[in-house]
Amino acid sequence: MPRPKPISGFPEFLPGDRLVEQRVLSILRDTFELHGFAPIETRAVEPMEQLTRKGEIDKEVYVVRRLHAAADDTVDELGLHFDLTVPFARYVLENAGHLAFPFRRYQIQKVWRGERPQEGRYREFLQADIDIVGQDTLPDHFDVEAPLVMLEALERLHTELGVPPVRMRVNNRKLSEGFYRGLGIDDPDGVLQRVDKYDKIGPDAVRGLLVDGMGLDAGQADACVRLAGISSPDDSFIGDVRALGVRNDLLDEGLEGLARVVRAAAAQVPGRLVADLRIARGLDYYTGTVYETELVGHERLGSVSSGGRYDSLASDGRTTFPGVGISLGVTRLLVPLMAAGQLRISRPVPSAVLVAVDAEETRDVAMQVAAALRARGIPCEVAPRADKFGKQIKYADRRGIPFVWFGGTPGEVKDIRSGDQVGADASEWMPPASDLRPSVLH
Amino acid sequence: MPRPKPISGFPEFLPGDRLVEQRVLSILRDTFELHGFAPIETRAVEPMEQLTRKGEIDKEVYVVRRLHAAADDTVDELGLHFDLTVPFARYVLENAGHLAFPFRRYQIQKVWRGERPQEGRYREFLQADIDIVGQDTLPDHFDVEAPLVMLEALERLHTELGVPPVRMRVNNRKLSEGFYRGLGIDDPDGVLQRVDKYDKIGPDAVRGLLVDGMGLDAGQADACVRLAGISSPDDSFIGDVRALGVRNDLLDEGLEGLARVVRAAAAQVPGRLVADLRIARGLDYYTGTVYETELVGHERLGSVSSGGRYDSLASDGRTTFPGVGISLGVTRLLVPLMAAGQLRISRPVPSAVLVAVDAEETRDVAMQVAAALRARGIPCEVAPRADKFGKQIKYADRRGIPFVWFGGTPGEVKDIRSGDQVGADASEWMPPASDLRPSVLH
Repeated sequence: MPRPKPISGFPEFLPGDRLVEQRVLSILRDTFELHGFAPIETRAVEPMEQLTRKGEIDKEVYVVRRLHAAADDTVDELGLHFDLTVPFARYVLENAGHLAFPFRRYQIQKVWRGERPQEGRYREFLQADIDIVGQDTLPDHFDVEAPLVMLEALERLHTELGVPPVRMRVNNRKLSEGFYRGLGIDDPDGVLQRVDKYDKIGPDAVRGLLVDGMGLDAGQADACVRLAGISSPDDSFIGDVRALGVRNDLLDEGLEGLARVVRAAAAQVPGRLVADLRIARGLDYYTGTVYETELVGHERLGSVSSGGRYDSLASDGRTTFPGVGISLGVTRLLVPLMAAGQLRISRPVPSAVLVAVDAEETRDVAMQVAAALRARGIPCEVAPRADKFGKQIKYADRRGIPFVWFGGTPGEVKDIRSGDQVGADASEWMPPASDLRPSVLH
Repeated sequence: MPRPKPISGFPEFLPGDRLVEQRVLSILRDTFELHGFAPIETRAVEPMEQLTRKGEIDKEVYVVRRLHAAADDTVDELGLHFDLTVPFARYVLENAGHLAFPFRRYQIQKVWRGERPQEGRYREFLQADIDIVGQDTLPDHFDVEAPLVMLEALERLHTELGVPPVRMRVNNRKLSEGFYRGLGIDDPDGVLQRVDKYDKIGPDAVRGLLVDGMGLDAGQADACVRLAGISSPDDSFIGDVRALGVRNDLLDEGLEGLARVVRAAAAQVPGRLVADLRIARGLDYYTGTVYETELVGHERLGSVSSGGRYDSLASDGRTTFPGVGISLGVTRLLVPLMAAGQLRISRPVPSAVLVAVDAEETRDVAMQVAAALRARGIPCEVAPRADKFGKQIKYADRRGIPFVWFGGTPGEVKDIRSGDQVGADASEWMPPASDLRPSVLH
């Protein structure tokens, strides 16, 4: 067949970039598990009626049908999940009897959206979500914990792999709603929707929308815009809000909730989290703290990690499951950094050593050397052909393998970068730790 | 919404079983990388025309469409991949210029088949494939290497996790074809198809099919059935075949190829691989060695790991890519063992320690203890509520967490299984290694 072309919106990695992605996933899994989050995976499909419950997203769903589905096929119509929250909510309801609450889970899986592809938008992409879900109640301190766990993971990606540092912007829906209600506004959601455009259109245009579109008076609109302009890396935002002179119980609750997040973050991951009172998050199920996260220096990528508190993730009529969660867009984070050459692997193959083959008759000797090295955790491969040694070295070089082994178990090993060749025993020799596995260069 | 029901054929795990699966995947990845296989992932979808090239499989494909695809949508129709070989062949053609050959890759991903669900058949399941692919040529010794790598992985699953041991049954298409041609039979594929039913219908019925269905004479049919009856854990099968008195060059080539696999396996993973001359493998693209693998004691599950040699995995008209590969059905292997209670996790949460909370005002202290433990790699979580200690201990017990920490960084830690409680410092204390992470019980 002719050479196939990529399908727009379905990114794929060459092996080197996949090795980088695996390092990222390994750090995420490790961090989440250190915090007691248990892993789950859900099937790729959900019943279409579940996926289309939120009206605005249904045009992005991929429908899945058997090619030769019988006309009398009574199986529900299925679609690919477009996030990990809808399947998780279903999973919690389905398995509630087998889970201990508050249930802490992480989930790292592909999701699919039938969007028109454009920069930073994908039709298939990888997400990593953590959520904590309670049965009927869930203490507020989890609103503090969830973003700190994600920030810890992102900080490790920064220090261990060289991913740029992040800035998490946090708000609290109660704070905004209480403030608006304190101003005598009846439709806080309407205000939130318009304030959500602040970064795109600026404060004056938002003020205009509030007055013209919602009929707020100039004083109300001005107060809303001034609230949206408040941000601080510490709890000084409280004073700034107080200075606007609005009083409301829900506002107080929101201020206190947000202050707790900011104070804890300042102690644990200083400089990475700010209170930002214009963060709204479009989705309507958030009811408390909301998070957005940008990469410092790459703000135009938009938010790479978002989430918040929802008082009802799921409900079966008798029991309600409140939750708080945050999701990391792994593909969205990695693809632009890889394209910019900012996340590169030291070599695109796991092998640290190529074991050379003298002659096809002695391939067994080379395989024994390889087995001895692997037994001590050294990735290696045996040369595909008993070519002249120069050609075998070239083969290693082309693959990025740093060492070539000659002879038997007691033999010689050559660092093909420096040309140094030394006697070595396959049951004792170790490469430098930095060469053992492919590493992310930064 | 009412409690959702599982969708038949789409298995999902509770967190404990997912932890088992993760351990399995970690061992697979580690083994494959020690042997120099690089990881790739391909998108979940391929153009339908690629997926339906093999006529017999097209009814099993899931078609994927955007819910509101425009009538003038010129994008190719897409389907979910039903294996990892078709996408890999496409990936090799698409990226040949960026890969070093022989290219060694592993790939662990879900695949989908729109089959009628029945025991051991899934509509969504996880596969783990390794393949070695050459450009124009690929030496035969890779036919020996590929099954040994998979056997090494399966042996680690056996010794480290308690998965039952395996028996890999190996044949060589050249051996069978050469034998049939040496008997003067013109349609070796026809014979192979019928011999493939040997295990199901027995030798006499196969003999009948060969005589009645293909017009072989009694002597030819008898020789074919006798060939199919030969198996040996060493290279003694050669003598058994020779005793049938057939001479053919391709037969000799096949005998030698199979003997190499058997001899290498006997040295490296004794007792796990047998030459079995009735293994045929249905798919028609295999051209040399073929592998099937059953779990000892669970033979009725069928083959959990299969593969073989193909002289043309892919071709762009100018270059041909021969390969050899073997695939492990992870879901197919794990689900029945889990259902039978043979693979259980020591606890369904990562946390080794629950840090108790004295009072909500001192939650910060508990969080500091948790941070100190995590800094040394100990998974832990902080109690959700400052309940009475008895209730907090019950909470840990319900989740399977073995230790509860009381007090601050210098505090006390209780093994809730034995009841032993000792003074401990969070910057020094370690749980026993066997309690650090959830482990698979066997």
